[in-house]
Amino acid sequence: MYKFLEALENQIRMMKENMDITKIQQVIDALQNAKSVFVLGAGRSGFVAKSFAMRLMHCGFNVYVVGETVTPRIERDDVLIAISGSGETTSVVNISKKAKELIGSRLIAVTSNPGSSIGKMADVVLVVRGKVKTERDEELSKIAPLGTMFELAVMIFLDALIAELMSVRNLTEKDLEDRHAVLE
Amino acid sequence: MYKFLEALENQIRMMKENMDITKIQQVIDALQNAKSVFVLGAGRSGFVAKSFAMRLMHCGFNVYVVGETVTPRIERDDVLIAISGSGETTSVVNISKKAKELIGSRLIAVTSNPGSSIGKMADVVLVVRGKVKTERDEELSKIAPLGTMFELAVMIFLDALIAELMSVRNLTEKDLEDRHAVLE
Amino acid sequence: MYKFLEALENQIRMMKENMDITKIQQVIDALQNAKSVFVLGAGRSGFVAKSFAMRLMHCGFNVYVVGETVTPRIERDDVLIAISGSGETTSVVNISKKAKELIGSRLIAVTSNPGSSIGKMADVVLVVRGKVKTERDEELSKIAPLGTMFELAVMIFLDALIAELMSVRNLTEKDLEDRHAVLE
Amino acid sequence: MYKFLEALENQIRMMKENMDITKIQQVIDALQNAKSVFVLGAGRSGFVAKSFAMRLMHCGFNVYVVGETVTPRIERDDVLIAISGSGETTSVVNISKKAKELIGSRLIAVTSNPGSSIGKMADVVLVVRGKVKTERDEELSKIAPLGTMFELAVMIFLDALIAELMSVRNLTEKDLEDRHAVLE
Repeated sequence: MYKFLEALENQIRMMKENMDITKIQQVIDALQNAKSVFVLGAGRSGFVAKSFAMRLMHCGFNVYVVGETVTPRIERDDVLIAISGSGETTSVVNISKKAKELIGSRLIAVTSNPGSSIGKMADVVLVVRGKVKTERDEELSKIAPLGTMFELAVMIFLDALIAELMSVRNLTEKDLEDRHAVLE
Repeated sequence: MYKFLEALENQIRMMKENMDITKIQQVIDALQNAKSVFVLGAGRSGFVAKSFAMRLMHCGFNVYVVGETVTPRIERDDVLIAISGSGETTSVVNISKKAKELIGSRLIAVTSNPGSSIGKMADVVLVVRGKVKTERDEELSKIAPLGTMFELAVMIFLDALIAELMSVRNLTEKDLEDRHAVLE
Repeated sequence: MYKFLEALENQIRMMKENMDITKIQQVIDALQNAKSVFVLGAGRSGFVAKSFAMRLMHCGFNVYVVGETVTPRIERDDVLIAISGSGETTSVVNISKKAKELIGSRLIAVTSNPGSSIGKMADVVLVVRGKVKTERDEELSKIAPLGTMFELAVMIFLDALIAELMSVRNLTEKDLEDRHAVLE
Repeated sequence: MYKFLEALENQIRMMKENMDITKIQQVIDALQNAKSVFVLGAGRSGFVAKSFAMRLMHCGFNVYVVGETVTPRIERDDVLIAISGSGETTSVVNISKKAKELIGSRLIAVTSNPGSSIGKMADVVLVVRGKVKTERDEELSKIAPLGTMFELAVMIFLDALIAELMSVRNLTEKDLEDRHAVLE
């Protein structure tokens, strides 16, 4: 467990060093200007997408999860945030393509692979490294298998983004609590 | 399979004979006057609740499923539709209670048991019979086990209610299609 | 509401007249011989798929919903049941294709369109009519918009199939109840 | 965003310092000896629970999410992992109580509040601190509102636990990949 936590600390250090302020500003602008925000991801990336969507709702955004019950038709003025480590998850690629080509919505890709299908399609690409470069992958794969590091890094990154959005929108914890579901 | 379909035909015949126009009008009024509509159900009744919620969204209602990602805090001006055959499903009872007592929201119970916990709590009780009275239960339990007849009857009833709502709101199939999700 | 219920009665009558015993036997055999059963559907067809999956679990089948948390890799010996009225829902077509071509799993398509993409791919096609032919579509679309009739017909058909499976597997309501979730 | 990442680094440092090896061993034993593992959580804690459940499935555990379609009745030999920061989330408390009192299943509580309802009920309590003690709460609430720090800390902790379980069960990344869903 120590090794895992140290690998994660490396990950966070790297995240701080490589923070791309321009990109982050682009994402904040896209979210602020969107009529509605849609989030999309498969498997554990999907749960990260939902965690982010829930917090966006608490922040007063009009937000939907692709595939959930009350999600309406996406429109041209909406933003789709697609999360995929490889950038090649079939459903994520197909749905992003539809939003981009058929509807003309704005697409933000969160991926560790900017040259991937969704990376190339996106208006803004948020590159989140999933593997710590300085360690050998064989080592890391024993403690953080498959997309673990990517998923954690994205969850952390998007929660950090919420901190920014709260500041931009001038929100307090109380404002978020007022929108938090009580029926649970 | 024939026996099952015949039992269902009996169920629908009974539904036509016992239709309570006053109650249905109360439900339509409650939905039309609500700021937002929340739906709630466990297990298969939950899937029926979600099917109804999706159609309400297509009809232009502001609707949420209790427990889904983007569901906000319920308010006093909102309506909660709770589906439970027995009317005693723990989570459904507890959540309905919270909505009713803590928030003061309007509660519509859909149940086969009007004397149950949610039946007694509700502002409007839609009684949907789950078992065809004229047949012996032992017979029915072999072809329609557990809540099957109740769940089907509610699904049918709520889709019939959508027909009414389309007429009341003057909606065409095209209007619904325009709100239907395309990212799927 | 009466008109809706009458349209549904027509639907059930048609279902009884057109019941294809050979097809139903093929489906029962495929389910009985599968190592695991996977179900798939988008939107309201997805809720119908989940309702069926839950009952299959109650009947002792090893069953999974595509996209849910604990769903493992599908294998060659598994069966995928794909529900799509049009037979052209993007995600359903793509996932069915993957299961069929990449893995070699058995595919059962439930659709109103046997000539569709999933219809042509499937090992067994269960044709469920979504629109009652003798009525004009314009009439029906006002009371049963979009896929309503298809979704209800499939829900009913699959619950009738459960009745058959209970008989084939010699199960009582009590057997199903013993597997029914209590934490809800 | 820097401040958020620094707060998280503090959190991870604290986690390393306070790691309770005996407790962790108890949890590993409970998981290894369980017939099935059930996970439970509301809101964002629920997504963390699902992320963990998915990885447990990849590791070959028989695992279910409370409330999902194919989740069967919990038994005496099963373990329920309940995640709640406050330890007082209504549904989590009620369901844990049912599992513990009615069925007699083993209960592992993951909470920041060991004196809470689920803390007092549990066989093993994993205490995960949600707020970094050395910072003033008012500061933290602006960058990590509501349960953010708890949810992230639990996600990280449970992924670190997966690293341990892979080692105990002698699993490689390839073993996990072989169970990973392909239909997505």
